Amino acid sequence: MKIARFRSRGRARYGIVEGDTVVEMRGSPFRGKFQRSNQTHRLAGIVLLPVSVPVQIFGGVGANYRDHIAQAEAASGRQLGSMGLQPFLTSNASLSGSGAPIILTPEAAEVHYEGELVIVIGRKARRVSQSHALDHVLGYTCGNDVSEKGNWEKDFSLWRAKGLPSWSPVGPWIDTEVVPHNLDIVIRQNGQVQHRYNTRDMIHDVPTIVSYISQYTTLFPGDLIFTGTSGASNAMKAGDVVEVEISGIGTLRNPVRTERIGK
Amino acid sequence: MKIARFRSRGRARYGIVEGDTVVEMRGSPFRGKFQRSNQTHRLAGIVLLPVSVPVQIFGGVGANYRDHIAQAEAASGRQLGSMGLQPFLTSNASLSGSGAPIILTPEAAEVHYEGELVIVIGRKARRVSQSHALDHVLGYTCGNDVSEKGNWEKDFSLWRAKGLPSWSPVGPWIDTEVVPHNLDIVIRQNGQVQHRYNTRDMIHDVPTIVSYISQYTTLFPGDLIFTGTSGASNAMKAGDVVEVEISGIGTLRNPVRTERIGK
Repeated sequence: MKIARFRSRGRARYGIVEGDTVVEMRGSPFRGKFQRSNQTHRLAGIVLLPVSVPVQIFGGVGANYRDHIAQAEAASGRQLGSMGLQPFLTSNASLSGSGAPIILTPEAAEVHYEGELVIVIGRKARRVSQSHALDHVLGYTCGNDVSEKGNWEKDFSLWRAKGLPSWSPVGPWIDTEVVPHNLDIVIRQNGQVQHRYNTRDMIHDVPTIVSYISQYTTLFPGDLIFTGTSGASNAMKAGDVVEVEISGIGTLRNPVRTERIGK
Repeated sequence: MKIARFRSRGRARYGIVEGDTVVEMRGSPFRGKFQRSNQTHRLAGIVLLPVSVPVQIFGGVGANYRDHIAQAEAASGRQLGSMGLQPFLTSNASLSGSGAPIILTPEAAEVHYEGELVIVIGRKARRVSQSHALDHVLGYTCGNDVSEKGNWEKDFSLWRAKGLPSWSPVGPWIDTEVVPHNLDIVIRQNGQVQHRYNTRDMIHDVPTIVSYISQYTTLFPGDLIFTGTSGASNAMKAGDVVEVEISGIGTLRNPVRTERIGK
């Protein structure tokens, strides 16, 4: 099942994507009631929203693909290879949906895309074992962990490096059926493939990540966990379109523009 | 004006505190409409909620009182004295109100209170000058930046050291009239005064903090910024009651208990 969140008749709603059509649902996939309505929409005609309303967003879990570690160490000035799982919080202000612009601010130096698999929590998780962790996952979506590569990754927290408005686009929707450990991820910039990788190369897999975080804190329905990117990334510039496509899920597509000062 | 947020007839509402009475308001102080209703409540009879629904919470701004720096350096293993303003994000999952329990989890080592002034943003702030910064502040409240003092402050982010559920109590309400730079703060544990300080000793004052953050990102109505604590702090244990009283605002009071496993 593919569950989209979109704006219709003035408010956010959930719907099931079936081919070119979205069947509007009553209720939420994160609470009890979630039923088909009679209302349908053309997929091409709706405005997609972020896939959930999270309590918290883990913008990553530290370096989770070996080929990304060296590049991340150089950028951050920290030794990351041996740090193990290091989930980090990002701001809910950074959340946006597929189609929404990624906004480059004049204060930011190089701003890179990082395309990755995102876990969508479905049920509250506190101290769950690895073998039960997937029971607490509703599904998966594509995410772009937009990251500033100047000096801001050296901050005490990543509020500037990763937390700016529009810097955590997720979408286009939640897929509840894909198996998370054999998914092809393709990152495109202006239609050109920049990197391809497969989630089988994750250092810490999805059950490990969910179980680990839940040993210390509580994960809530709708919470999002970015699982880390692979390879090197490129800077984005105004006018670019960046796509993160994950096999079986779909394509997150975001245009890039500069901030309109005074708005 | 003192603006409380509380639960009444099944949902969250705002009200104006007048002596022992709360006048229920229609609408929100963060949006256009905010009008008195005919409904009043006894202050003693309501359940206070977190003072706002923030998009993001800055759990602190780095060490902001000289007498706290040495202690924080020892705990974190980082040089903090020269780091300047270092706002850090905490999880929205950590938010709670006055009266709500601070929950100690068995995984956490020593867990300390840190009593501090909290800024409540009233109007969206992006790239505001220091001279206009206070126009974007609705008011102030008391906060307890609950912090684990084992190894978790060395994490890549502070998700475990400061972001656990119930670890950012704020309240009892927002005061919109106090002037933020001559406020006495008293921290009590089980009725005993543990520390007293005055906000005049802040290294970075409120206009500096708001203006600084807004140079890089956007602050939204309801966002909370903890401004840092002074002095040393103590560990809390189940059965304690911790109070943070700020002159002119009121007293944030939270009992401490251990997590009920299996809930």
